[in-house]
Amino acid sequence: MTIPLFRTFCVIGPGLIGSSVLRRLRTDPGLVDRIIVADRDPAVLERIRCLDLGDIITDDIPKAVAEADCVMLCVPVGAIAPVAGTILPYMKPGAILTDVGSTRRSVVDALMPHLRDDIPYVPAHPMAGTEHSGPDAGFATLFEDRWCLLTPAAKAPQEAIDRIAAFWRAMGARIRIMDVDHHDTICAMVSHLPHLIAFTICGTADTLAEDMRAEVLDFAASGFRDFTRIAASDPTMWRDIFLNNSDALLGVLDRFSQDAAAMAKAIREGDEKTIVETISRGRRIRRSLLENRQA
Amino acid sequence: MTIPLFRTFCVIGPGLIGSSVLRRLRTDPGLVDRIIVADRDPAVLERIRCLDLGDIITDDIPKAVAEADCVMLCVPVGAIAPVAGTILPYMKPGAILTDVGSTRRSVVDALMPHLRDDIPYVPAHPMAGTEHSGPDAGFATLFEDRWCLLTPAAKAPQEAIDRIAAFWRAMGARIRIMDVDHHDTICAMVSHLPHLIAFTICGTADTLAEDMRAEVLDFAASGFRDFTRIAASDPTMWRDIFLNNSDALLGVLDRFSQDAAAMAKAIREGDEKTIVETISRGRRIRRSLLENRQA
Repeated sequence: MTIPLFRTFCVIGPGLIGSSVLRRLRTDPGLVDRIIVADRDPAVLERIRCLDLGDIITDDIPKAVAEADCVMLCVPVGAIAPVAGTILPYMKPGAILTDVGSTRRSVVDALMPHLRDDIPYVPAHPMAGTEHSGPDAGFATLFEDRWCLLTPAAKAPQEAIDRIAAFWRAMGARIRIMDVDHHDTICAMVSHLPHLIAFTICGTADTLAEDMRAEVLDFAASGFRDFTRIAASDPTMWRDIFLNNSDALLGVLDRFSQDAAAMAKAIREGDEKTIVETISRGRRIRRSLLENRQA
Repeated sequence: MTIPLFRTFCVIGPGLIGSSVLRRLRTDPGLVDRIIVADRDPAVLERIRCLDLGDIITDDIPKAVAEADCVMLCVPVGAIAPVAGTILPYMKPGAILTDVGSTRRSVVDALMPHLRDDIPYVPAHPMAGTEHSGPDAGFATLFEDRWCLLTPAAKAPQEAIDRIAAFWRAMGARIRIMDVDHHDTICAMVSHLPHLIAFTICGTADTLAEDMRAEVLDFAASGFRDFTRIAASDPTMWRDIFLNNSDALLGVLDRFSQDAAAMAKAIREGDEKTIVETISRGRRIRRSLLENRQA
């Protein structure tokens, strides 16, 4: 690639996702000419400096965004709208604003009054992550073959959308463009509900009698182990996701709770047919996942 | 080891667990002198023959058990008591009866009337498995460093308990001896409830609108993927486990449902403190698991 996607690219809030983007940019120096990394936390900036992940590393966020052709917010979902509101007045006309938030509707609603007609807003949600967080947790291949969901604002010009899509393709991701509310329901089902359940079941185990709790930890079979892996994720990030996608999440949680109650009833009444049907569905979905090469 | 643990060892119903036991025996020929494998299904026996996992391979179950010093039932939980009832009259005085069932109370209750004073009953539950099933799914290292929970009958002599414990140690497992009801509650929490939830959430996804279901499969993030792995398990096996451990399972499911409802309430009301506390608990449990070297 001879022409860079952006002259000056700015990441604000480099944690797991942001630092993975930066690492990938370092492996492919032609993508952007200059990298600015900004954060309010001096400890984060120090780590970015040690890892050599930015050309300019600063806590002066207005100055950082003023020079950028693209600003990517990698802050927790609850901070996206406030931070965007703060930086938008400083951004260059024509520069693109993007973020990597996991929920959309509440962010878009909060951001709408602050948006400028000369700043295209093209958020992108890379469906990738681990249970670890912070700038040291990132790695350059995090987005390889993972989906990245773009939910561009209605007013965003096609050129800006194409540029953000090209950027994420360069990160290794597969692109899908979709409507804000559709995005939120899909993510509530495939990611937010499983996390809510994982956090909850760990809490349930934690309230068992003292002696039993110790044994639960001793004997955690694979079932419980898998649940605790995703339950080890960052509390602030997930608090924000739950609060910012509450409608869609409570909707799928309600469906799930009804399904769990139906399963409990089947077990209580010895209804073998319903039990086997529910289990067989799991196998079918698993098979579909394998066919989609996501497993 | 110069003296074998058993002269003649008989496995009935060699699936994932039974065939893994047989494979392990093949890697350590000193453990037993002679291996008999019995099953009613000719296709299973044919696979065992091809894999060379038994010295005598037969569908004549009474004859098989009559020669054995130890009979290990590897049939689904719901079949343990009926099969044991059938074979007990044919067993040699002093031979040990064991099984590998995942639930205990209902099995013990159903088995009690059939037990003979001259046949020690020492069931053992190896907490190991994969989402695959059948004789081809087994492997010799399945039990390596995994727990095996012994719940010997009150009348079982110490010598028989020691022998079954030695057998499972030779399989690579770590041993814990415990009370029947305690076993069932622990397993309901660490294994049966996670499986019930995994099956249920796949069903919930499956009832989404047609277009959304396809996208759920496309975008399954790591959260949902982990859930579907355990949801791919064998329907008959899990139906039996759910029905045979229904009291303990419905007990922990009820606790979990209350906890999930509390989490929904916190999200609905924007109660950040409760949300963060629940998530932080997950991390704490995860840390304990890592310290227990089970993760």
